[in-house]
Amino acid sequence: MDLLSIKDPSFLKNLSIKELESLSKDVRSFLIDKLSQTGGHIGPNLGVVELTIALHKCFDSPKDKIIWDVGHQSYVHKILTGRACQFDTLRKHKGLCGFPKMVESEHDVWETGHSSTSLSAAMGMAVARNLKGEKSHIIPVIGDGALTGGMALEALNHIGHEKEKMIVILNDNEMSIAPNVGAIHNVLGRMRTAGKYNRAKDELEVLLKKIPAVGNQLAGTAERIKDSLKYMFVPGMFFEELGFTYLGPVDGHNYEDLFENLAYAKKYDGPVLLHVLTKKGKGYRPAENDKIGTWHGTGPYKTETGDFVKSSNTAPAWSSLVSETVRRIARDDKRVVAITPAMPVGSKLEGFAKEFPDRMFDVGIAEQHAATFAAGLATQKMKPFFAIYSTFLQRAYDQVVHDICRQNLNVFMGIDRAGLVGADGETHQGVFDIAFLRSLPNLVLMMPKDENEGQHLVYTALNYDDGPIALRFPRGNGLGVPMDKELRTIPIGSWEELTDGEDAAILTFGTTIPMALDAAAALAKQGISVKVINCRFIKPLDQKMLTDILKSEMPILTIEEAVLQGGFGSFILETANDLGFHGARIERIGIPDQFIEHGNVEELLEEIEMTTDSVISTIKTLARQKEKRA
Amino acid sequence: MDLLSIKDPSFLKNLSIKELESLSKDVRSFLIDKLSQTGGHIGPNLGVVELTIALHKCFDSPKDKIIWDVGHQSYVHKILTGRACQFDTLRKHKGLCGFPKMVESEHDVWETGHSSTSLSAAMGMAVARNLKGEKSHIIPVIGDGALTGGMALEALNHIGHEKEKMIVILNDNEMSIAPNVGAIHNVLGRMRTAGKYNRAKDELEVLLKKIPAVGNQLAGTAERIKDSLKYMFVPGMFFEELGFTYLGPVDGHNYEDLFENLAYAKKYDGPVLLHVLTKKGKGYRPAENDKIGTWHGTGPYKTETGDFVKSSNTAPAWSSLVSETVRRIARDDKRVVAITPAMPVGSKLEGFAKEFPDRMFDVGIAEQHAATFAAGLATQKMKPFFAIYSTFLQRAYDQVVHDICRQNLNVFMGIDRAGLVGADGETHQGVFDIAFLRSLPNLVLMMPKDENEGQHLVYTALNYDDGPIALRFPRGNGLGVPMDKELRTIPIGSWEELTDGEDAAILTFGTTIPMALDAAAALAKQGISVKVINCRFIKPLDQKMLTDILKSEMPILTIEEAVLQGGFGSFILETANDLGFHGARIERIGIPDQFIEHGNVEELLEEIEMTTDSVISTIKTLARQKEKRA
Repeated sequence: MDLLSIKDPSFLKNLSIKELESLSKDVRSFLIDKLSQTGGHIGPNLGVVELTIALHKCFDSPKDKIIWDVGHQSYVHKILTGRACQFDTLRKHKGLCGFPKMVESEHDVWETGHSSTSLSAAMGMAVARNLKGEKSHIIPVIGDGALTGGMALEALNHIGHEKEKMIVILNDNEMSIAPNVGAIHNVLGRMRTAGKYNRAKDELEVLLKKIPAVGNQLAGTAERIKDSLKYMFVPGMFFEELGFTYLGPVDGHNYEDLFENLAYAKKYDGPVLLHVLTKKGKGYRPAENDKIGTWHGTGPYKTETGDFVKSSNTAPAWSSLVSETVRRIARDDKRVVAITPAMPVGSKLEGFAKEFPDRMFDVGIAEQHAATFAAGLATQKMKPFFAIYSTFLQRAYDQVVHDICRQNLNVFMGIDRAGLVGADGETHQGVFDIAFLRSLPNLVLMMPKDENEGQHLVYTALNYDDGPIALRFPRGNGLGVPMDKELRTIPIGSWEELTDGEDAAILTFGTTIPMALDAAAALAKQGISVKVINCRFIKPLDQKMLTDILKSEMPILTIEEAVLQGGFGSFILETANDLGFHGARIERIGIPDQFIEHGNVEELLEEIEMTTDSVISTIKTLARQKEKRA
Repeated sequence: MDLLSIKDPSFLKNLSIKELESLSKDVRSFLIDKLSQTGGHIGPNLGVVELTIALHKCFDSPKDKIIWDVGHQSYVHKILTGRACQFDTLRKHKGLCGFPKMVESEHDVWETGHSSTSLSAAMGMAVARNLKGEKSHIIPVIGDGALTGGMALEALNHIGHEKEKMIVILNDNEMSIAPNVGAIHNVLGRMRTAGKYNRAKDELEVLLKKIPAVGNQLAGTAERIKDSLKYMFVPGMFFEELGFTYLGPVDGHNYEDLFENLAYAKKYDGPVLLHVLTKKGKGYRPAENDKIGTWHGTGPYKTETGDFVKSSNTAPAWSSLVSETVRRIARDDKRVVAITPAMPVGSKLEGFAKEFPDRMFDVGIAEQHAATFAAGLATQKMKPFFAIYSTFLQRAYDQVVHDICRQNLNVFMGIDRAGLVGADGETHQGVFDIAFLRSLPNLVLMMPKDENEGQHLVYTALNYDDGPIALRFPRGNGLGVPMDKELRTIPIGSWEELTDGEDAAILTFGTTIPMALDAAAALAKQGISVKVINCRFIKPLDQKMLTDILKSEMPILTIEEAVLQGGFGSFILETANDLGFHGARIERIGIPDQFIEHGNVEELLEEIEMTTDSVISTIKTLARQKEKRA
C-alpha cells in the first residue's frame, strides 16, 4: 500500500492478517530504501515491524499510551502515525527526529533517547490514569538491553509492588547495541528456550494429578511441591517474583501469536510482562547477519549489497584514536583495565578486547555501576579507563561526585561524543559535561586540539597518579595531522599558544580551535593580530598564561562547544575576577541556554551563531573598543 | 572488656562464643551510652553488633576487604579497629566521621554515605585481586533497602554474569530508613519465612526418590520436575537466577549460625549471597520498638527513657513547612501527588501520606525512578511534588536533564538539605545543586529567605505551569517568623530589596541572608550603607533589579552556601558581563573548590571564612575602592 497516504493508525482495524503481512513487507522495503539514503537505526526498526503494527491494531493510540524505550525503534510507529512523507528529512536539521517527539505527533506521548526510562514514565501515566478515574492501556516497549539499566529495575520493583495495571512489552532481540551482557540476559536466555507458557499450563494440570501422596512427616512439603511446580512451567519466575504476570515468549514476527497474547494481556488487572522475541534487522540480510551491532545505527549504504557509503574522511576516528592509544599503553602497564557500558563498538574497544580479554569489561547499559566499578578498581591501584559518551556520563553523575572525585581516585574517564553530536539530536548532545564537571573538586578535565595531542593526553592521563582525570573528545574524525611515534606527558594545567597577537586573545579548545585559527588568519589580513590559545586543560586552567594575557589588557574571547551557563568562559570570568582583573574585557561564544535539536553540526553551529564570521566580527568589535580606550 | 584498649581486630581470633557474647553486650552498652551524648545512627549499629564481630573474627581485615554499604552502620567496625576512644567526637568537627573514612584506618577500604555503591566497589576490588593474582575475600555488606537502588541491581547483574568470587552479606532488617518498599522487599519477605537452606537440601533428596516415573510422552517434562524442585527449597531463587549461590536466611544475632555459614561461604569459588536477618536497634528497647525509623539516626537522648533531648528551636522544621504546605494545597488541587525515595519521615510527609494515601508514593531508594515517575505524571497534567535531598538529587541528574527539563515538564522538586548539612559530612553536603541545575534550560530555581516566604514559594511552584520548578531549602528549622494565613504567588524571577543602601550591594538568598543583614547593620553604624537583596530566584535572575544595581556602579558582593565554581555568584558575573557591565566590581563568598567534612554548620562556615566578619571586611574593602575611584 501507499505508506505516504497513512494519516493515523485507524486503518489497521479492518485489515486481515494477510493484508497486515503485505503491509509489513511494504514497511520494510520503505525503511531499507529510505534509510539507505539518510542513514538511521535500521536494525532495531526492521525488528519491530510486526510488533508495532500489532500494537497499533490492538490498542487505541493516543488514548492508549505506547511508550518507546530509547526510542530509536519508533520509525514504524512514525510511519503508522502519518509521518512517512517526512522520511527524506530523517535526522536532518529541521527534519523528522530519530526519536519520539511530542511536537511531531499526539501519538508520541513520551520522548526518549537515553535508555531505560519507559517503565518509570509508564508508572507515572498509570497512576495519573487511576487518580483521574480514566480507563486506558499503558504499554511501555523496552528492549532486553535497556532492562539492565538500574532505573528500569527500580521501576519494575515499584510497579510490581503497587500492582499498577500496565502491559510491559519486553522486546527481546538478544542484542541491545552490542550483544547483551549480564546475568539478567542469561535469565532471558533460559526463558527463550523454555517453551510456551500456555502449553505449559496444560501440562501442569495433567502432572499435578499424578503427584503421589507422601508420608505425614512431609505433608506440608508435599503441598509446597504442588505449588512450586509452577516454577518449572512458568519460565518468567524472575518477573513473577517481582509481582508481574509473565506471558510468553511470543514470536514477535507472527501476527496471530501477537494478537492472541495482547488480547490476553489486556484482560489482566495488574502489571503484565509480555516477552516478545524479535530479530534485529529482520528482512534485510546484511542486517540480519550482523553479530556485533554494526547495523544498529548506520550512515547511508547501498541497498543491494549492504556496503556502507564510505566517508571521505581518512583521519582516525576519535574513539579509535583514544581506545587504541589506551591499548598501546596497556601493553606495558598491566594495571590498565577498560570499562564500557554497552558501547564496545561505539567506543572502538574491539582491539583492546581482543588483545586483553581479561582486562576488558562490558558491563551492559549500567553507567552508574561502570563508574563505581572503576572507582573500586582504582582503590586497588589499578588504572581503569572508563569509556563513556558525554551524554551518558550524566547517568553516573553522583558516582563521579561521591565515589570518584570525593575519594580522589585515579580513574581515567574518556568522555566521547563531547560537544554537538548532530543527527541524534537533543537527547544526545554532549554539551553539559563541562558545567557539571568543573564544579567538582579534584578533577582534571582536558580536551585535545588534534589527534596527535590526543594521544599524548591519553598517555598523560594514564601516567597521572593524583586523582580523577578526564579527556573529552568529539564525535567523528580527527584532523589528519602527523602522529608522533613516541608518547609523552603534557604538564597538567598547561596551555599552548598557537598564534601570537596583540589586539585580542581567543581562548578555546578542541573542535573550535580551527574556527579560531581561521578567524585569526582572516583578521591578520585586516591588520588585527590575534593570540589564539589552545586551552587543552579546561580545569585546572593555566593560571600563569591567563594572568599574562590579563595583564596585557588584551580583550579576550572564549569559544566552547558546550553550554555557556557555568561553562569554560564562565570559569575564565570567575578566575579573572578572583585574580583582581575587574575591568577585563571578556566575551563568550558557546551554546545558549536551550536544548539543541538534531541536524548536522555545521548547521547547528550556524543556527546558534557559532561561526568563523561571528568570531571575526566579535574580535573586531573588541579590538575597536580596545583602541578607543587606549 | 575495655573497648578503649582495642587496637585491631586480631584479639577476636582467640575468643570463645561466650566471650564474644559478653563483648557484644559491652559494645551495645558503649554505643547506647556514647550516642546518647553525641547522637548518631544508633538503630543500624545495634543491629549489626554480632555480624560485625563475626566478620572480623572470620576474615582478616584489611587483607580481606569488608565494604560497608551506606556506611552509617560502621560504628562497631570502628570500635573493633581501634577507634573506641574517639567516640566522644563522633560526627563533630575534626572528630570521628559517621561513615567509613580511609584516613582514619586501613580497615576502611571504601568510603560511603550514599547507598547502593558497595557491590560495584566490591566488583572492582575482586577484579583487581584476580588480575594481580592475589588471594583475599571481598565482603560487601548491603542492607535490604540499599538493594532497591538501581546501581546495586546493575552490579548484581554484572557480578552474577562474571561469576567473580565474593561474599555479599545481605543485612536484612526489613527496614532501610523507613519500612522498605517494593517487590524485591516482598521477595525477601518470602525468603525469610521459607526456612533454612541446608535442611531443605536434605528434604529434597528424600523427595526426589519418591517422584514416580511418568508416561513416555512426558519423559522430558518429568526430568524437569526434578530439576525444578529446587525452586521450592531454595528460597533465594531470585538471586540464584542472577548467578549467585544463595545461603540463608541466618539469624544475625547468633554466633554459631553466623560462623557456620561464613565458613561455608568462604569455600565457594563464585559469588555467594548470605542472607542475614538482623533487628535494627537490637538490645535497646526504645530503638527495638521503633516501627517507622525514628531511631535510625538521632540526636542526643536520655539513655534510661529513650526520650530525645529537645531542641530549643521552636520554629517549624523546613521539611515540615514545605510538606505541610503541599498538603494544604493538595486539599484543593487534586492533581498534587507526592513522591519520596525512601524518606517519608525525613521529608516529613507523614501528614500528607495519612490524608492522601492514594496520592503518596514512597518508591524506595530509587531516585532515578522517582524523578522520571514524576515526569510521567506531569505528562498527564498531574502536579508531582518530588521531595528529594540535594545530595541525593545527584543520583537523578540525568533524569532531571533528559526527562524533566528537556521535555519541559511541570515537576515541582523540593530540594531538602540544601547547603551544608553538618554532622553527616562530605558525602551529604547539598552544595553542588546550583552548579549542576543552573546550566539546565527551562528550570526555575528558588530559595526562600524564611518560612513565610517558603510557603508562598511552594504555592508559587504548584501554581506554575510552564515547566520544571525547584525550591531548595536547608536542613533544620526556620527563623520563627510570623506566617501569613493566605498563600500567594510570588512573580517568577523577582527579587526583593531587604535594606536600601548606596555604598555596596549584597546579593544573597536563603540561609546566608541573616549574615548579610547582620553585616549591613554593623556597617551602617560605621557609616557604610548596604543594599541587601533577597535573590529568592536563583534562576531566572531578576534582570531589572540586577541591571539597576549595576547601573548605579555600586560594588556587589554575592554570598551563597554552595560551591562557588559555576554557582550563583558565577551566574552574576556572567550576567553582568553579558549585559555589558565589564568594569563591574563583584566579589563572591561561598564554598571553595574542596569537599567539606563533618562538623556543625557554624564551625564549617567559620573554617571556610563564610562569616559576618568576613562579609563586613569584604564590603569595607569594596566601599573604600569605590570611594577611591570616585
